[in-house]
Amino acid sequence: MVRVTDGRGWFIGKAFYSKHSKISLRWLSYEDIPVDVDFFRQRLVSADALRRKALPGERTYRVVHGEADQLPGLVVDRYGDYLSVQFLVPAMEARKELITDLLTELFSPRAIVNRSDVGVRALEGLQPEKTVLRGELPGPVSFDEGLVRMRADLLEGQKTGAFLDQRENHVMASQYAFGEALDCFSYVGGFALQLATRAQRVTAVEISEAASAQLRDNAAANRLTNLDVVVANAFDFLRDSVDEGKRYDTIVLDPPSFAKNKDAVAAALRGYKEINLRAMQLLRPGGYLISASCTYHVDEQAFEDMLASAAADARRRVQIIERRGAGKDHPVLLNLRETRYLKCFVLRVL
Amino acid sequence: MVRVTDGRGWFIGKAFYSKHSKISLRWLSYEDIPVDVDFFRQRLVSADALRRKALPGERTYRVVHGEADQLPGLVVDRYGDYLSVQFLVPAMEARKELITDLLTELFSPRAIVNRSDVGVRALEGLQPEKTVLRGELPGPVSFDEGLVRMRADLLEGQKTGAFLDQRENHVMASQYAFGEALDCFSYVGGFALQLATRAQRVTAVEISEAASAQLRDNAAANRLTNLDVVVANAFDFLRDSVDEGKRYDTIVLDPPSFAKNKDAVAAALRGYKEINLRAMQLLRPGGYLISASCTYHVDEQAFEDMLASAAADARRRVQIIERRGAGKDHPVLLNLRETRYLKCFVLRVL
Repeated sequence: MVRVTDGRGWFIGKAFYSKHSKISLRWLSYEDIPVDVDFFRQRLVSADALRRKALPGERTYRVVHGEADQLPGLVVDRYGDYLSVQFLVPAMEARKELITDLLTELFSPRAIVNRSDVGVRALEGLQPEKTVLRGELPGPVSFDEGLVRMRADLLEGQKTGAFLDQRENHVMASQYAFGEALDCFSYVGGFALQLATRAQRVTAVEISEAASAQLRDNAAANRLTNLDVVVANAFDFLRDSVDEGKRYDTIVLDPPSFAKNKDAVAAALRGYKEINLRAMQLLRPGGYLISASCTYHVDEQAFEDMLASAAADARRRVQIIERRGAGKDHPVLLNLRETRYLKCFVLRVL
Repeated sequence: MVRVTDGRGWFIGKAFYSKHSKISLRWLSYEDIPVDVDFFRQRLVSADALRRKALPGERTYRVVHGEADQLPGLVVDRYGDYLSVQFLVPAMEARKELITDLLTELFSPRAIVNRSDVGVRALEGLQPEKTVLRGELPGPVSFDEGLVRMRADLLEGQKTGAFLDQRENHVMASQYAFGEALDCFSYVGGFALQLATRAQRVTAVEISEAASAQLRDNAAANRLTNLDVVVANAFDFLRDSVDEGKRYDTIVLDPPSFAKNKDAVAAALRGYKEINLRAMQLLRPGGYLISASCTYHVDEQAFEDMLASAAADARRRVQIIERRGAGKDHPVLLNLRETRYLKCFVLRVL
């Protein structure tokens, strides 16, 4: 933790310093105040206050979204009575005990899991870590998304156990679903199960056998019998479906990131265009396409331009009904757009 | 109505032709199908189907949003049992009887009001018109926005009677409201009344005596006694409030359009920055700023850049919680961005 001054020696703020990182300074405060336990308690309380306002009654949400909550290098996700935490910079890693104590004090969780097993820590000179910090974890935990009950393995699942950034979009999808629905890149069914609560029949396409199995388990646990899981590459499935003249009323595309760096953007956009063009071709008039992208390097404008190009090629008129991002528990800082990455368009194909 | 062909004489679509307008052609169809009563019935049914999906249970919404619903030059707003309609291009004006018949068939309204008294008709060589086309209008009609009951004078009110594009944003504002709230450019209270359902105390600033009187009536009709109406220029009120060291927990800024053409954009952005900067200065830490702009020529990126600049000047860190637009009954065509104009940011000022 350092005091930052300008060329004349005047105080301009307090920040976390990171020796090994390309990001040397991460801002904490414009004011010259003590960065102590009260400081962190106030920041955590403020972060949780936003979620109570924006997501009243929710028990599963991102409590702390790093820099966007003025807590750089800290991620805290709540799954009901359990917390899953990431410490991503050395200065936050050094305060692991302090943060864990404060989380215990504020949330009285049954367990706190440390999911600091992420590649980005290497850039900060930190080793990966995965452990239960406090309490006991009885196994996977259950949480609700609208009418659907999901399960997350906080120790072994993706990210901190699940993709909380898409929670609101998952529930939204149930509103539009009707008729014959298709969900591509289904993973464990975040979108597919929501579609199944409303659509007549859902086809979920997922390439991983393990994720497909968990998707089937999730469907059974929710007594959703109108869902077929196809273990396949979604690109191939979409191409074959167009060739076979299949038609759907609702399609969801929520692929994994297509570009890990700027050089891969052109290829990523070609990939996005291919799947979105085919989805538009597969939709009956008046059908809905929910199209997401979590590729940070493809910004919203580029994504929308790609969709427009796909619509032109498909010779379909397409209405934008909603332009959404990550949930309200994933705020974006006004002067730090790097904190924005998720796009989720609700389109109606005429 | 014309058939459009390319240079080789091949059919490329059907369109409305407008002799006097800068916009010569307005697209109807890529297919060579008859543009008859069944064509328009199908388009109206399709438009209403979107609203039933996106806004289930709503009785007040925009049924037809012109070109974005493949019905160029036609606007149809529903206020419960009443319809308010605009015919904006000659080809649609020529089909007034046909459209009115279809709306009667599909909605069985108690009355259909023609609010074609808009300046844009002059560009199409059309005279303004304001009349009751069918049925009887008993006076202002009531409609609900969340917990608030509003009234609209379909014959004399703004637009078709009210600002339906902000309906969803009005209701959303009630969710964030707390403590001492300020609403600027209040008009008849679309935002102010929502704030009053949750905040301790609301100050509504509106420059028009007539709108202020209606706002007071609306507050009384909703039994909201925690709302003070100040008849003042919002720019002056905000400046004076900063000078006096006042503080608020929730602020809404929903000004009228600041720029009617491209040349006025720079001045418009200065105006937006002034009011947003002052609002940020007036907010207590953790307070919410709901900031809207209906200026078409200021796009979302320019508006966000202005907000970022205001935050930097105010030396406040600001979280973007939601980036919203017009309601889901105001779709935007993917290849016709001219149909997008309304921005509404939910910000949290730290």
